[in-house]
Amino acid sequence: MKRRDFARTMAAVAATALPGVSLHAAAPHRVAGVNGARLNGWLSAIGEFGRNPQGGVTRLAYSDTDLAARAYAMQLMRDAGLDVVVDAAGNIFGKRAGTDGAAKPVIFGSHVDSVPEGGNYDGNVGTLAAIEVARTLGEQRIATRHPLWVACWQNEEGGTWGSELVTAESTSAERATIARSGKSVDDGIRLLGGDPSRLATARLHKGDVHGYLELHIEQGGNLDRDKLDIGIVEGIVGLREWDVTIEGFANHAGTTPMNERRDAMLAAARFTEMVNRVVTGEPGRQVGTVGRIQAFPGAPNVVPGRVTCTLELRDLDDRKIQRLYDTVVAESSKIGAQNGTTFAFHEFVTHESALCDERVRGIIGASARALGLTTLSLPSGAGHDAQNLARVGPMGMIFIPSVGGISHSPREFSRPQDITNGANVLLGAVLAMDAASWA
Amino acid sequence: MKRRDFARTMAAVAATALPGVSLHAAAPHRVAGVNGARLNGWLSAIGEFGRNPQGGVTRLAYSDTDLAARAYAMQLMRDAGLDVVVDAAGNIFGKRAGTDGAAKPVIFGSHVDSVPEGGNYDGNVGTLAAIEVARTLGEQRIATRHPLWVACWQNEEGGTWGSELVTAESTSAERATIARSGKSVDDGIRLLGGDPSRLATARLHKGDVHGYLELHIEQGGNLDRDKLDIGIVEGIVGLREWDVTIEGFANHAGTTPMNERRDAMLAAARFTEMVNRVVTGEPGRQVGTVGRIQAFPGAPNVVPGRVTCTLELRDLDDRKIQRLYDTVVAESSKIGAQNGTTFAFHEFVTHESALCDERVRGIIGASARALGLTTLSLPSGAGHDAQNLARVGPMGMIFIPSVGGISHSPREFSRPQDITNGANVLLGAVLAMDAASWA
Repeated sequence: MKRRDFARTMAAVAATALPGVSLHAAAPHRVAGVNGARLNGWLSAIGEFGRNPQGGVTRLAYSDTDLAARAYAMQLMRDAGLDVVVDAAGNIFGKRAGTDGAAKPVIFGSHVDSVPEGGNYDGNVGTLAAIEVARTLGEQRIATRHPLWVACWQNEEGGTWGSELVTAESTSAERATIARSGKSVDDGIRLLGGDPSRLATARLHKGDVHGYLELHIEQGGNLDRDKLDIGIVEGIVGLREWDVTIEGFANHAGTTPMNERRDAMLAAARFTEMVNRVVTGEPGRQVGTVGRIQAFPGAPNVVPGRVTCTLELRDLDDRKIQRLYDTVVAESSKIGAQNGTTFAFHEFVTHESALCDERVRGIIGASARALGLTTLSLPSGAGHDAQNLARVGPMGMIFIPSVGGISHSPREFSRPQDITNGANVLLGAVLAMDAASWA
Repeated sequence: MKRRDFARTMAAVAATALPGVSLHAAAPHRVAGVNGARLNGWLSAIGEFGRNPQGGVTRLAYSDTDLAARAYAMQLMRDAGLDVVVDAAGNIFGKRAGTDGAAKPVIFGSHVDSVPEGGNYDGNVGTLAAIEVARTLGEQRIATRHPLWVACWQNEEGGTWGSELVTAESTSAERATIARSGKSVDDGIRLLGGDPSRLATARLHKGDVHGYLELHIEQGGNLDRDKLDIGIVEGIVGLREWDVTIEGFANHAGTTPMNERRDAMLAAARFTEMVNRVVTGEPGRQVGTVGRIQAFPGAPNVVPGRVTCTLELRDLDDRKIQRLYDTVVAESSKIGAQNGTTFAFHEFVTHESALCDERVRGIIGASARALGLTTLSLPSGAGHDAQNLARVGPMGMIFIPSVGGISHSPREFSRPQDITNGANVLLGAVLAMDAASWA
């Protein structure tokens, strides 16, 4: 991108009347765009850490390949002129001072760990683009009022642990959770150079942060299907998960007439179909899933007396999740009455939805449109570190297309141009956020 | 039962015109009924071998408790004046000579092994009643034309192994099957005193047996519910089992819109409900069961890309099973077309139905009615050794009520009077069979 183009971009961002945002007089900066070739080169390079034979990466948090990828990211941060810090929670920050000593930091970044047999885009794109933005600003000697912190959060795939630990209290019992690498979170923190006994030193509190931005691949197919460039995330959906236990009566599959069975598997089947019917029965983007199931005793020749399965519901509106759940429970009672089975629900995961800040959404939209990129506002059905950062300051997320909407798979892929586009939108949004005072 | 009553019984059996049966001139015998108190005492005594703390027994084939119960049964056979033989397959026979040196044996009996945490009635009732019948005949010095063989078949619960081995070929690979006790069938045979290398010496062939009778508890609730005394079994139902594999596409449960999912679990739910609908959609006693299921990858937050489950269909008419299966396959294709999933079926168990001999059914019915007992003709939904004996001679089964239809459970229970009734019906049927020539 030519320097002149991006200058227009920033002018356009500045000229956009964003409700709740007043831009500092110094904006817009005259700045060239990111070096897309360099960014995509880094992405290829980091893909060597934990590369799978079939493509993609397996880079479990707290594994050797996680450590290697983090070391690579830290070197890139240093090359970008950033001061590298590992906080007590094991998160990496590449820090750059601002001109206003009293200003709070603008934080932007993502993660580099992956799921087993995942892809090289989920997390890596956002982390490396954040470093590229910092490097671009450094190369062009662009000063910002606010300190900039490029973040690489630890153990995102295991449950956004790194960002959770800096934005909320945790207990050692919670941190005894064993990650997929086989290590506890506390052991992982120590391995990464943190210190579980000093987590308080890493804590961010409400108001400590000027704003948070995260670029990420869309882990759905909306942008790719509709051939749109940039997703402006409305928020990260709320998520609730239940263990569902269906009790009937186990009996001999040969001697028990059909009309005398209290078949927990038949009830589970009706339950699964009902969940689908309830969730799709009204307009909206809500989703519902039965992902795990087991029948007991689990023999081909025994009518199952008990079935356990899971129910997951997600939506941007937590009240809608509650309403759908209430309907599912009521319908389950009817299903149970049909064949003498009972349903019990035990909630084991609850994440409230995290709405993106409207002002930050406005900045992201203006940044994208100023670059001539097409946009779509959409919720994030997946969880991200951004949902935790929403606790401490205005938060926004930028999505780029993932081909076919495929993620958590070796087939995960985003086009280099989309990655460059995303980094430039992030650059514009970082500068606009730096220039913004929240009204 | 008084001697005079039972004389009337046999006269009534003899007077009944049974198609295909001509009774020998020597019939009816004047004979008193069985000693019900003694029989029920033996049943209590054998219940000590493998007794569970919560009631019932665990007496797995080839276990120490199986050996102990077999030793007890062999002693009872000797006390009844029978010659005890363990054949090369590990089955016990208590043999008694007939008056006609050329006559083929009448075989009657059952088994003493159990399922894990099973009851003390399944198998034991038939084995001990058979011994009691022989003892009754011995005490009253009643001679029969045909040799009588009281049978105790080995490893019934592991798949009617003992009766299978004497009525069909087997390979050493098949006999390498590991029983629930952890031993292979061949090792089990040796443990019981048999010899796998000499199985040919134990073989019975078509025509070698005058007839086979087995008394057993009904492992369903028909007799108990309708307050009837005796079940005249029409046959042992055919049984086929398939592994069903449903392929969809695994995807992120948060980011994949409902209308873009190829959810194998939803297809499995529709499949399970469809099986129920197809099986109950026409008159008859056919049953269909989905007893085992697993979703892959099996996480609450992933739309299942693959589900494996089992399908089992049973009916007395093998052609009906085939017809139901064909309908299930056709309906599965429609379900798959609804959400982009595919179904594959792999049959892994096939047992053809074994019909009880009509003439033997007539004898059992006459024996029961002559004793003033009420009867019901019904199929056996469960498998029994009798299904194998049907290969070598006319076969019939006598059912007595099991309270609540409960079986394979510590709660399995049959009333002492019903057990005595069953033994008397067996006694009458053995004598009538001995007197019968098959037309």
